Amino acid sequence: MSSVTYGFEAAAAELVRVGHAAAVHGWVPATSGNFSVRLDNGEVAITVSGAHKGELTAGRIMRVDLQGRPLEDKRPSAETLLHVQLYRRDPAIRAVFHTHSIGSTVLSRMAQDELVLTEFEVMKAFTGIDTHETTLRVPVFSNDQDMTRLAARVATFLDSNDPVPGYLIAGHGLYTWGASVADTLRHLEAFEFLFQCELETRRLTAR
Amino acid sequence: MSSVTYGFEAAAAELVRVGHAAAVHGWVPATSGNFSVRLDNGEVAITVSGAHKGELTAGRIMRVDLQGRPLEDKRPSAETLLHVQLYRRDPAIRAVFHTHSIGSTVLSRMAQDELVLTEFEVMKAFTGIDTHETTLRVPVFSNDQDMTRLAARVATFLDSNDPVPGYLIAGHGLYTWGASVADTLRHLEAFEFLFQCELETRRLTAR
Amino acid sequence: MSSVTYGFEAAAAELVRVGHAAAVHGWVPATSGNFSVRLDNGEVAITVSGAHKGELTAGRIMRVDLQGRPLEDKRPSAETLLHVQLYRRDPAIRAVFHTHSIGSTVLSRMAQDELVLTEFEVMKAFTGIDTHETTLRVPVFSNDQDMTRLAARVATFLDSNDPVPGYLIAGHGLYTWGASVADTLRHLEAFEFLFQCELETRRLTAR
Amino acid sequence: MSSVTYGFEAAAAELVRVGHAAAVHGWVPATSGNFSVRLDNGEVAITVSGAHKGELTAGRIMRVDLQGRPLEDKRPSAETLLHVQLYRRDPAIRAVFHTHSIGSTVLSRMAQDELVLTEFEVMKAFTGIDTHETTLRVPVFSNDQDMTRLAARVATFLDSNDPVPGYLIAGHGLYTWGASVADTLRHLEAFEFLFQCELETRRLTAR
Repeated sequence: MSSVTYGFEAAAAELVRVGHAAAVHGWVPATSGNFSVRLDNGEVAITVSGAHKGELTAGRIMRVDLQGRPLEDKRPSAETLLHVQLYRRDPAIRAVFHTHSIGSTVLSRMAQDELVLTEFEVMKAFTGIDTHETTLRVPVFSNDQDMTRLAARVATFLDSNDPVPGYLIAGHGLYTWGASVADTLRHLEAFEFLFQCELETRRLTAR
Repeated sequence: MSSVTYGFEAAAAELVRVGHAAAVHGWVPATSGNFSVRLDNGEVAITVSGAHKGELTAGRIMRVDLQGRPLEDKRPSAETLLHVQLYRRDPAIRAVFHTHSIGSTVLSRMAQDELVLTEFEVMKAFTGIDTHETTLRVPVFSNDQDMTRLAARVATFLDSNDPVPGYLIAGHGLYTWGASVADTLRHLEAFEFLFQCELETRRLTAR
Repeated sequence: MSSVTYGFEAAAAELVRVGHAAAVHGWVPATSGNFSVRLDNGEVAITVSGAHKGELTAGRIMRVDLQGRPLEDKRPSAETLLHVQLYRRDPAIRAVFHTHSIGSTVLSRMAQDELVLTEFEVMKAFTGIDTHETTLRVPVFSNDQDMTRLAARVATFLDSNDPVPGYLIAGHGLYTWGASVADTLRHLEAFEFLFQCELETRRLTAR
Repeated sequence: MSSVTYGFEAAAAELVRVGHAAAVHGWVPATSGNFSVRLDNGEVAITVSGAHKGELTAGRIMRVDLQGRPLEDKRPSAETLLHVQLYRRDPAIRAVFHTHSIGSTVLSRMAQDELVLTEFEVMKAFTGIDTHETTLRVPVFSNDQDMTRLAARVATFLDSNDPVPGYLIAGHGLYTWGASVADTLRHLEAFEFLFQCELETRRLTAR
């Protein structure tokens, strides 16, 4: 397990950097996406609601508790519950990133319950995977504006399946997490790369 | 309604910033595209004709009145009428952006009268939409070099339909607007993202 | 006709700027592409052979005469003949750009003798075209390592057809030109945009 | 043959520059990719294991010998054997780059034993090729986590075939090399361009 430590200021600086990078990639259009880090004191630093990630500043990162309740006078992301449920489930998780790319949006709308990926070298980027001879089954949940209900469906899935490094919400995007900001960013890049490869492959073969 | 205020200098600075961002995205090739803001004094700040948006400077933003008549000795965009008709119809509109992306060009040429989008989370980026369970019908007008005639067709449509946050002109691009520069930029990013998702989806399914 | 003037230093600075922009777009991979300007004194400033356009400096721009003969001790682009034949034909031409994009490469390989484009608003970016209700027939020449022979085929075509703002060489890319650097860059951006639109459209419809 | 010289510091600076450029292109997602230069003293400078190439620093370049053994207390890339076998085979090789792009990943997974490319002008970017009238057969090896076994298969192929400027590993990416960093970067850009052209062409024709 990682031995990273995050105070609020360091976490906010990391989230600003990740937000800007995600914007350059086109993964967070139109104020979409949200990003969080679990702080050393057990609180969570998370992007506020409605912030454009390409223009993110530390002033638009706020603290919430593990139930997602604001610890300062700002409004956290509408999807805060999806972040904190992951932190509550697994003490090793230190960062959660949600992006909203073209690849994740299109593939998740076309998938039924899961997206199956296999025989890609880049899957070794996921913590715990050490060979391309792996089949990764990424769960896809149908979209829901009721975050409590959506979080409950995610919890039910995670309770009864082998660990996965991320999941998709249909027409909405990717959630991924890890034991540090660096691990989570590596997972994010691996997923978005896999989605692009999958789209390219389907264009050429699924006919 | 937004309480934003725009003097000419602030508006011009915003338009320069938006123009450069649109150029980086590839949405305004070859001097295409035009951008405007309604000023606090009721005049409109708009890009001049023929300016390359990636090299836009405040000197290439000019003032016109609500009939589109120049208020200084420069030539406004050829499509100024399409901007000012929107400002005249709705006092809440403070910015109008026209872009000319690959996605909007290709989809608008293939569409008949409208482009129908549904079940995308990003549609919540449009002011007044709060769920992905929405069907957005984006009108598509055939292209016309006669701006008075084209503006009249747009007016007829807007008079007799529910409000929309934007429209397409076939082979020509997108018009979108909002209650502030930030709102309009969010609408623009949401539309361009939706067009890309729609193109990707059609590649995979429309066979 | 344009009244632009170009001394060598100003021309070299413009060519460096255009080269860097083309590299950012991915239009000049692996030292491909070449760019020239006709100077006020009748000489031509052109990129040397083998220069990477993303790292272009003024030291890699050289002078040749209208027959393409070097006027200094450097080796000009292998395709210099294709530039100077255009300057000799038409005194109004002040710049010639050759790019090597994915779009121009793929479409030119699939085309027979021409690429036909119609009903695109962006065609108004070409000098002399003022409506989208235009059909542009872009000639496509088969590739040839013998520049004299290739130049002769281009000359034969241009002698016996209406003026065009550019042509393609199969599997090799685009040549375009104009009355100034700005005009030529606008033509280049318009062509590359049209190629992308055409590729997207064919993906969706040509089945 | 090139007369380039590389001390460790100059080589490390070049590798940092190449790593950053590859990251901007999206060719090294999620810490994938590795890059090396043969030093004048016969040692090899290579990226360490797990480094993100977009954030590469000289401190993450290390020295190994021609058997791939570390010459300092860092862990070299897991694929170091694939680099050093090339340096041992051919004294003219001064740089080896491995990238992990969408194009190389998708095409290599679909290929059987080779990827055949023909009639592209850009093939002239490969040292020794001077016409587009060339057919380039790029070998594709199946992926393997056992580097000794994979290196042996590569060696067997190279022993019994005409020289090629690179090869693919299925679902894993490209290896390319050259007589200098500049030559190898030109080969890399040419390959990635060819892969994109091939993908585009297959989308339009392979049905």
